[in-house]
Amino acid sequence: MLLAVDAMGGDNAPLEICRGAIQACNKHTGLAVVLVGNINELDPILEKEASVPRDRVHVLHAEESIAMDEHPTIAIRKKRRSSLRIAMEMVRSGEAKGLVSAGNTGAIVAGGVLVVGRIHGIDRPGFGVALPTLHKPTFLLDVGATVRSKPINLYQFALMGNVYMKTMLGVKTPKVALLSNGSEEIKGDDVVAEARELLSRSTLNFSGYVEGDDIPYSRADVIVCDGFSGNMVLKFAEGLMHAVYEIVEEELHHRLFAKMGMLFMIPMMKTLWRRFNYERYGGTPLLGVNGAVVKAHGRSKAAAIASALSVTMDFVEKNGVALIREELGQENS
Amino acid sequence: MLLAVDAMGGDNAPLEICRGAIQACNKHTGLAVVLVGNINELDPILEKEASVPRDRVHVLHAEESIAMDEHPTIAIRKKRRSSLRIAMEMVRSGEAKGLVSAGNTGAIVAGGVLVVGRIHGIDRPGFGVALPTLHKPTFLLDVGATVRSKPINLYQFALMGNVYMKTMLGVKTPKVALLSNGSEEIKGDDVVAEARELLSRSTLNFSGYVEGDDIPYSRADVIVCDGFSGNMVLKFAEGLMHAVYEIVEEELHHRLFAKMGMLFMIPMMKTLWRRFNYERYGGTPLLGVNGAVVKAHGRSKAAAIASALSVTMDFVEKNGVALIREELGQENS
Repeated sequence: MLLAVDAMGGDNAPLEICRGAIQACNKHTGLAVVLVGNINELDPILEKEASVPRDRVHVLHAEESIAMDEHPTIAIRKKRRSSLRIAMEMVRSGEAKGLVSAGNTGAIVAGGVLVVGRIHGIDRPGFGVALPTLHKPTFLLDVGATVRSKPINLYQFALMGNVYMKTMLGVKTPKVALLSNGSEEIKGDDVVAEARELLSRSTLNFSGYVEGDDIPYSRADVIVCDGFSGNMVLKFAEGLMHAVYEIVEEELHHRLFAKMGMLFMIPMMKTLWRRFNYERYGGTPLLGVNGAVVKAHGRSKAAAIASALSVTMDFVEKNGVALIREELGQENS
Repeated sequence: MLLAVDAMGGDNAPLEICRGAIQACNKHTGLAVVLVGNINELDPILEKEASVPRDRVHVLHAEESIAMDEHPTIAIRKKRRSSLRIAMEMVRSGEAKGLVSAGNTGAIVAGGVLVVGRIHGIDRPGFGVALPTLHKPTFLLDVGATVRSKPINLYQFALMGNVYMKTMLGVKTPKVALLSNGSEEIKGDDVVAEARELLSRSTLNFSGYVEGDDIPYSRADVIVCDGFSGNMVLKFAEGLMHAVYEIVEEELHHRLFAKMGMLFMIPMMKTLWRRFNYERYGGTPLLGVNGAVVKAHGRSKAAAIASALSVTMDFVEKNGVALIREELGQENS
């Protein structure tokens, strides 16, 4: 399977992006990648890196790149020779089965819509994240492809999240819920309330509203919200876990006994960090577009890029896009 | 100072509410409380409890109470003999300097608006919370008095948060920010963008947008958002810290070494828990009404009620309401 990688997107591009792609190829013998980016930067990296499977790691030159702070739509429209735009075109044409980018989030969404194209019947694509929680992953979407949503968008996010959870994570009849400011029916704003109506009439296993504290307690398999709220929750979680980590480090400096205790606890702390490090989720698929478009965190290092490539492979192998199309057809028939 | 306490509101009412009020009176010799609630339940509690300063702990009978799941506005309008409504009336008449309730959040807001009354010039009151963060508290509002807000509401929340931070927490020129889905100017929805305009033209020390991960890192002293988002962030934080705590407990069961290590770490874990236990924030003032109306968490036990009473005392002593009025006058002059 050939996947395109936007080698110029992200805070640690292109070095960590290349390393991640190499890691992924070494892990999956069935994977080949095209690193799209400036050949003058990429070639020297590939020459220096050890154990590069050169038959499966290709470079495609792109003259331009899209910076993290550029206006997304303008950038994707005008920079036709940018690494992201070229990677998107490879997905549209079918040359690549999917793509990974750690670049400008808005530009990934704009490219998904304008270049790859939306799935027929989907108004707005959504980013989904399988969040680590107390018992099992919870799929939260949208975490930032949209800002505010209409009820129909939330309804479509629910359908797509349902497919993702069934297909990718093997949950038979996912429990789907709407994120709101209280679990009672009278809560929520007009948009959430109308989405609730739509979902109540659907064939989904819809359980109504959940609140913020239901997320870490895995009280639903799929939790739907607009991109503004989803972004907030995800970013807050990242920040909080980092802050706690920093405090633990700071405290350990001051407390000798605690430091001794810490030695005994390393395995536990590792488990905890693995479970709740919200940056490690690896890949965030853009659901609702005609291809496997997966975003990696802007701060991604090699391991996160490799993980995003694994997510993309999995999505392609399991026919994620076709299954979303099918679910849409069934619900609307 | 006499404060009213809604003795019937909250999951642990009336016992823990009474105990909290007694604790507070024993701590602050200048405090007297009126426990408003069913005398048949309250009197036996006061008889059983040890060291009740009976000269400063009074009981006022209320025939009714408002349940946690009742419709807020209807309940506050119709249940004129409910403990919450009577406590609200004591604040309006000036009999009590303020009140604490752990009851129905919506009913506290409705009572604040309909019974105590809004401060002239304030369209919607907001709940504010001093969140524990990495370095210093951050005041987040609104955390649930409103659902969605207009730009003018967000602007007024900012003014009130600014006063609160200056007065209650002694921050000289609080840095005020708006919660959004990105820090760049092009982020945010229309409401947030318009509020940004309003705040840019104000006399506040306004620093633009912050994101979810800026909250735990104390990147602003006052962070403003609508009640839907604020509620979500606060609830999620509570849930996440609880989930982490549960996992630590679970892990300790399985890991002998970790358990040994834990013994050394108890002081550190206590510090951490104290700093990030989002349920311990004690009291959430309803800013924008003509009196000190403070909400305690629905799950409050005695310590949280006592803490909410301390917050209320402090707010009254520092003339919180008058200072908000003054700030409004200055901004609008």
